[in-house]
Amino acid sequence: MEELILHEYAASGNCYKIRLTASLLGQPIERRQYDILKGETRTPEFLSQVNANGRIPVLQIGEQFLPESNAACWYLAEGTSLIPEDRFARANMLRWMFFEQYNHEPNVATLRFWLAFVGEANLSDAQRQQIAAKQAAGDAALQLMDEHLGQADWIVGNQVSLADIALYAYTHVAEEGGGFRLADYPSVGKWLGRVAALPGYLSITD
Amino acid sequence: MEELILHEYAASGNCYKIRLTASLLGQPIERRQYDILKGETRTPEFLSQVNANGRIPVLQIGEQFLPESNAACWYLAEGTSLIPEDRFARANMLRWMFFEQYNHEPNVATLRFWLAFVGEANLSDAQRQQIAAKQAAGDAALQLMDEHLGQADWIVGNQVSLADIALYAYTHVAEEGGGFRLADYPSVGKWLGRVAALPGYLSITD
Repeated sequence: MEELILHEYAASGNCYKIRLTASLLGQPIERRQYDILKGETRTPEFLSQVNANGRIPVLQIGEQFLPESNAACWYLAEGTSLIPEDRFARANMLRWMFFEQYNHEPNVATLRFWLAFVGEANLSDAQRQQIAAKQAAGDAALQLMDEHLGQADWIVGNQVSLADIALYAYTHVAEEGGGFRLADYPSVGKWLGRVAALPGYLSITD
Repeated sequence: MEELILHEYAASGNCYKIRLTASLLGQPIERRQYDILKGETRTPEFLSQVNANGRIPVLQIGEQFLPESNAACWYLAEGTSLIPEDRFARANMLRWMFFEQYNHEPNVATLRFWLAFVGEANLSDAQRQQIAAKQAAGDAALQLMDEHLGQADWIVGNQVSLADIALYAYTHVAEEGGGFRLADYPSVGKWLGRVAALPGYLSITD
């Protein structure tokens, strides 16, 4: 494979997803850090050369740049057991990855970023007014996962897939977002343990 | 292929994506309607049998149920030219589909739903307070598309892919959301025309 460079902010769960996928696959990856709190992904250089959307992560593959965490995980995992071979299972894995970006990340990850990184005192009024709704929507996403994982060891099929990696990234640090209590979701808790026990597992702080 | 049933609300762009994909592929699909304004996707029957997340669309394939519009499009298009064969292009297509669900749909589609379907007078205060931010974020998503489409006829590669279908669905009706003006995005406008000229094209009201 061509040289891989991850343009990232290390504490971001979206960036961690890509590192975890690479680590589970034994794929080396170079890391370049940007401080999103200092606007380092909104500079003219970043916007023109790395991602016009001004966001990390971006996976650089040779001279090509791939934004969006779940797309980068897909790129890395093509042809491996992290993507199911069965047609329905493959689409169903993508279903949970879209769920993650639509129902889970904008709530669970955003509250963690606002409360643990930006700080509640620094939030705008508009942000503060969204906290309760994001808490409720994030709890609904965790509840849906808990019901699903009460019936299955893994999100899709009988083994780990990218759907587990995508949902693990922000779920396992959800409590940093303030109001989330993982003890309320026991099946999620057991599943977090299964992911952390995988050969090649890497923690978010590694 | 097994019998396909689309559980949907016809005016939803997310549901339309699936119909458009099926139509471009010449794939027949049965349609079942639910009125989301009357809560018909939150009934105990819907939640237990169709989608525990209480949302449409859901693509039913035989006895299996697949939520998330972009995952359903992926299922339909596997093995066709709507998914690029090149590894980077395939991941890059997914990148734009995740962008659609994260940066585009929650802004462009939500404002259309709030203003053209629910009605501004019926919005909650919390919703009304988000209108300006969603307008700005939706315009940023359209601007990013416009810059990209100023350099390429299609979102990824040299022909239509699922990325075009996913982004077309809510872009072409963006003006129903109130403040969006497609005339501000001329390259997007030309691309909308290219999509509408495709063999097998189906309009959102068909």
